[in-house]
Amino acid sequence: MIYLDNSATTEPYEEVVESYVKVAKSYFGNPSSLHGIGGRAEQLLTQSRAQVAKLLHTKPQEIIFTSGGSEGNNLAIKGAALQYQGRGKHIITSAIEHPSVSEACKQLEQLGFEVTYLPVDKNGLISVDGLIDEIRNDTILVSIIHVNNEIGTIQPIEEIGRVLKRYPKILFHVDHVQGLGKVPTNFEEAHIDMCTISGHKFNGLKGTGILYSRQGVQLSPLIAGGGQELGVRSGTENVAGIVSMTKALRMTLEDETFKIRHISELKRAIIDGLLQIESVSIHTPHQYSAPHIINFSISGLKPEVFVHLLEEEGIIVSTTSACSSKKNLPSKTLQAIGIPIKQANSSIRISLSASNKVEEVPILLKAIQQAITKLESVMR
Amino acid sequence: MIYLDNSATTEPYEEVVESYVKVAKSYFGNPSSLHGIGGRAEQLLTQSRAQVAKLLHTKPQEIIFTSGGSEGNNLAIKGAALQYQGRGKHIITSAIEHPSVSEACKQLEQLGFEVTYLPVDKNGLISVDGLIDEIRNDTILVSIIHVNNEIGTIQPIEEIGRVLKRYPKILFHVDHVQGLGKVPTNFEEAHIDMCTISGHKFNGLKGTGILYSRQGVQLSPLIAGGGQELGVRSGTENVAGIVSMTKALRMTLEDETFKIRHISELKRAIIDGLLQIESVSIHTPHQYSAPHIINFSISGLKPEVFVHLLEEEGIIVSTTSACSSKKNLPSKTLQAIGIPIKQANSSIRISLSASNKVEEVPILLKAIQQAITKLESVMR
Repeated sequence: MIYLDNSATTEPYEEVVESYVKVAKSYFGNPSSLHGIGGRAEQLLTQSRAQVAKLLHTKPQEIIFTSGGSEGNNLAIKGAALQYQGRGKHIITSAIEHPSVSEACKQLEQLGFEVTYLPVDKNGLISVDGLIDEIRNDTILVSIIHVNNEIGTIQPIEEIGRVLKRYPKILFHVDHVQGLGKVPTNFEEAHIDMCTISGHKFNGLKGTGILYSRQGVQLSPLIAGGGQELGVRSGTENVAGIVSMTKALRMTLEDETFKIRHISELKRAIIDGLLQIESVSIHTPHQYSAPHIINFSISGLKPEVFVHLLEEEGIIVSTTSACSSKKNLPSKTLQAIGIPIKQANSSIRISLSASNKVEEVPILLKAIQQAITKLESVMR
Repeated sequence: MIYLDNSATTEPYEEVVESYVKVAKSYFGNPSSLHGIGGRAEQLLTQSRAQVAKLLHTKPQEIIFTSGGSEGNNLAIKGAALQYQGRGKHIITSAIEHPSVSEACKQLEQLGFEVTYLPVDKNGLISVDGLIDEIRNDTILVSIIHVNNEIGTIQPIEEIGRVLKRYPKILFHVDHVQGLGKVPTNFEEAHIDMCTISGHKFNGLKGTGILYSRQGVQLSPLIAGGGQELGVRSGTENVAGIVSMTKALRMTLEDETFKIRHISELKRAIIDGLLQIESVSIHTPHQYSAPHIINFSISGLKPEVFVHLLEEEGIIVSTTSACSSKKNLPSKTLQAIGIPIKQANSSIRISLSASNKVEEVPILLKAIQQAITKLESVMR
């Protein structure tokens, strides 16, 4: 199998599953318990937090373990909005966010908040000047996706961070779910106040995630209760999930530069091949895009049929983001960058991981060409 | 080791961990993906939902998979309150709820809701007549813990459900985290609208849980986004966690009557033994209490020291609920039932599971007696 849907989810590293099992079996205590069974679980939790902090160049007390990216985005956005609504009720975000950001914003609109959705250009980029123009006295939060999950556009997070630094009352949240391990980012240097990461997107397990929340930022908890995770996220900690995600993070960030170069080369080779095929239009921008995502359409083809034809050859690609793939909705991102609806509806996403191999590229390209030939002959 | 802190967390069944590993490795796809890797994961998810529904005598579309009890309680209470605030903003709960209920209520108070906290009698029981007296035209939600996590009191859920049935605009939520497998309850027959369950309390894995939400009930999502879990709980589903929790649930409910009788006998034998010790006061009510929780104080003893002395003998008990054990706060429940603060501060909780054995009882009782003798001689 050639798995090319890594933006939807990744196969967990074997070592990650092993560490999960070890902790689930041998360290099953509740970290809040006073006795040694609890104490040993708590120790693992503390070690994981310290290790994650070191890997991400943050402080341990800035690391909140969550159940995943959607929780992280909701906690950051709604948690900040509810906490700081006394300062104002205006939020700025982009038109091409993940649903866990845009839907959280819609919920806030129902609670009386105002949300500005920044448009994007044909590459999927927001304009930083445009963002500045939208800043008001009552703006309390800016939330921008780092790497778009459909076409891979990288937003100028550092530049936005520099600008927002001049507005100390505005918090800056970044959805970094697709960026981790692909587009290295120093949260502090980029002046990010909150940053969301999801474990299963970097070969960790589902049900795990991290919200970086800069020291001093206060969030109204989504999950209130016993006060775990520094009071921001209650509930008995998923210690096995946390320890295993920490391992996945360490493994992902090992030789990060090398891995990114490898993925970039695969991406380049795939795009070069796709450009040879007449009926293909590539939607992923040439510049400013992540090394692992390629989005394209083949004129006149039904993408579901195409996905299944490739699958018959053992190649797994996606029609669009997993979240939207069964809803048959036109891609929000492709519409936002001005792709006509018919073309947007026939888009295919390839998303790579460091485990993909150079040898897979010609197999993929050949299978794509064959599938197109087959489908075109059927249609004729 | 004799593990007697099962209300804090349980050791996962080996079969549960095995099924987790199998799914995490072989069914790692994103259930929302169109291809077969995703489809097979989705199939497991659908099967789990159907099996859970069957085990709990509900409909599949009434089962929402969550990350645990705290999330379930927050989703039910805040989700219902925000959804139905147009009907009114009054909520009724009890004075002895788990923090994930009481803190969620406090957050709602900050949003302009009014919350009535029903007092309890010396057994920890609320008065159903008292509850009826508090119902107002703007009451939209009643949330009552089924089995109190500190002393084990069972509230008359069925009776409350019958009463609330006369008020179709009031939703009834039950925190059943400590009740599952211990106090059998048919949600539908008890007229429960929402019911929270936590996987790791019945030998499942941490990070897993279920919210039963009766068909027709609408909840404003805590975690909004891609629309997973029937639109109520977004985020890529933790399929391995869900499948393994389903297994834990099936195993827990197998021979449930037999297991409850077994635990009840252990509890009876432990209480009989404790009653022989002069300095012991038992706080768990004689009647209306769950088969697995025993709460008691030993006059003049520091409970942390006592817990550690028992641990040296390989016996794991708790001072109070895990959530409160490190905060050194006096037990809310013990204060609510009128135990003087000094005594409340010295309480010990034993919580059983079906895996505990009759032979463990005399060992426990002997260790308790020895610990008391030792500590009393030190103090003299």
